[in-house]
Amino acid sequence: MPGEIIDGKKISTEIKEGLKQRIEELKAKGSTPGLAAVLVGDNPASEVYVKMKAKACEKVGILSEVHRYQQELPESELLSKIDQLNREETIHGILVQFPTPEQISEEKVILAIDPTKDVDGFHPFNVGMMLAGKPTFMPCTPLGIVELLMRSGNDPSGKHVVILGRGSLVGRPLAPMLYQKAKGGNATVTVCHTRTHDLPSVTRQADILVAAMGKAKFVTADMVKPGVVVIDVGTNRIEDPSTKSGYRLVGDVDFDSVSQVAKAITPVPGGVGPMTIAMLLSNTVRSCEMLSTDRSTD
Amino acid sequence: MPGEIIDGKKISTEIKEGLKQRIEELKAKGSTPGLAAVLVGDNPASEVYVKMKAKACEKVGILSEVHRYQQELPESELLSKIDQLNREETIHGILVQFPTPEQISEEKVILAIDPTKDVDGFHPFNVGMMLAGKPTFMPCTPLGIVELLMRSGNDPSGKHVVILGRGSLVGRPLAPMLYQKAKGGNATVTVCHTRTHDLPSVTRQADILVAAMGKAKFVTADMVKPGVVVIDVGTNRIEDPSTKSGYRLVGDVDFDSVSQVAKAITPVPGGVGPMTIAMLLSNTVRSCEMLSTDRSTD
Repeated sequence: MPGEIIDGKKISTEIKEGLKQRIEELKAKGSTPGLAAVLVGDNPASEVYVKMKAKACEKVGILSEVHRYQQELPESELLSKIDQLNREETIHGILVQFPTPEQISEEKVILAIDPTKDVDGFHPFNVGMMLAGKPTFMPCTPLGIVELLMRSGNDPSGKHVVILGRGSLVGRPLAPMLYQKAKGGNATVTVCHTRTHDLPSVTRQADILVAAMGKAKFVTADMVKPGVVVIDVGTNRIEDPSTKSGYRLVGDVDFDSVSQVAKAITPVPGGVGPMTIAMLLSNTVRSCEMLSTDRSTD
Repeated sequence: MPGEIIDGKKISTEIKEGLKQRIEELKAKGSTPGLAAVLVGDNPASEVYVKMKAKACEKVGILSEVHRYQQELPESELLSKIDQLNREETIHGILVQFPTPEQISEEKVILAIDPTKDVDGFHPFNVGMMLAGKPTFMPCTPLGIVELLMRSGNDPSGKHVVILGRGSLVGRPLAPMLYQKAKGGNATVTVCHTRTHDLPSVTRQADILVAAMGKAKFVTADMVKPGVVVIDVGTNRIEDPSTKSGYRLVGDVDFDSVSQVAKAITPVPGGVGPMTIAMLLSNTVRSCEMLSTDRSTD
């Protein structure tokens, strides 16, 4: 019997409904959450992402600004813009869409964003607070994965989670979120990567498998144990002449075969993707709630 | 045949010899590394640790200051002292000996220390830089474990490392250090803890086992595979009427049985402990080198 589909779109919609209510309460108290997105250059994928995020903001009632700059923007000008947004009272979250053109250091950009407005959860200060188990903004994709597990009835506590991939956006921060002593954590966690020996012998131990290495359809049915819960973080373009665009998106998991043996699995698209955006909105609302609480207790 | 003993005392002595030379070079250029230790109250164990660290500093040529305060010291006074040490040009590393008395928040103390002088590697900014794989001060015990592995010919690259324990000082930061794509990393890493099911089935997979859960003699020979490399981070006092003090120190590993099957194993004491202090000295020297480079390029 094929496994259950974990519907990221549906779960993210439920989360956004909850956010709408919190935004109404904030507005009643005179605050509206505001997210500023900064886009440098004309990377078509980045343009799509920024538009999606802006539209998602508007739908739930978050004020959204998009600041667009030409490819040639000097780094210093971007850093001054960030500095200005750090001081803007109506802005509670700042996101700079990556990748930036080569004259701009992503590290400097991340460090320039005020940690209290770092709704992407990329600032080292926030990453460190996360690793220490302190309240902070968690990076959106790993946070979305934890939410997806919890809301689909697959609490990782006591389970063996195997993470494929140690990239800075997913594997590296996700591991400590899953082994920490907290709700959504308490899992035994194994991190695998290109240097792992006999990978299938490790992945077959997983109660929950998170695939985040960016290789199309890499995980096949013989690499998992029956009854596994699979979270597929990959979004790989493969050629497909039968579609209008000539390509389609597939995950890091061979969905057709793995879904036959899994207990539950996320689709691509419609799994982790919508959760990432929902977590960005959630972090922005939380930022507004914290800043407005700070002000009211002044 | 019993396994090789990984001699932390000997390896730390080699490291300190290397530091002496770097300190001579710094002195020749007019800089002497300085470490300020702050001790609040009269916890006898803390007193011992601070004295050991101060003595180790003096032995290699690091200037060592110890600032002692009474148990009742208000938090605000400690924070002003830290602020003063942050601005002191002769001080390159600041360490506040934990635990502090209950009126003092350890979190506030950690946040008060300038990350460029945080030679303990506890500041969230430095922890976040570490997780992102950027150069920073790494926490001393996990860093000492990585050095111990590398210098004893047990490079973790490609090996399966199982870490027992997810505490903030060892397990939590050590895991990402071992799975990162860098020298001393590249291991497949599993983090286990009290919620792990069937622990022996996991520990028996370890090529390298790091025991850091604080339970005396917890790891027994039946929990490891023959040929394992064992790093024992535990320091537990157990009663022993045959000693003068009436107690002795033992690790988290049952040394007598495990050493019979291990390829190599650290003793307690004399394994990880001396490495932790060596890494504190190493971080202090590095801090001085960085600050004096900054100054010379002004």
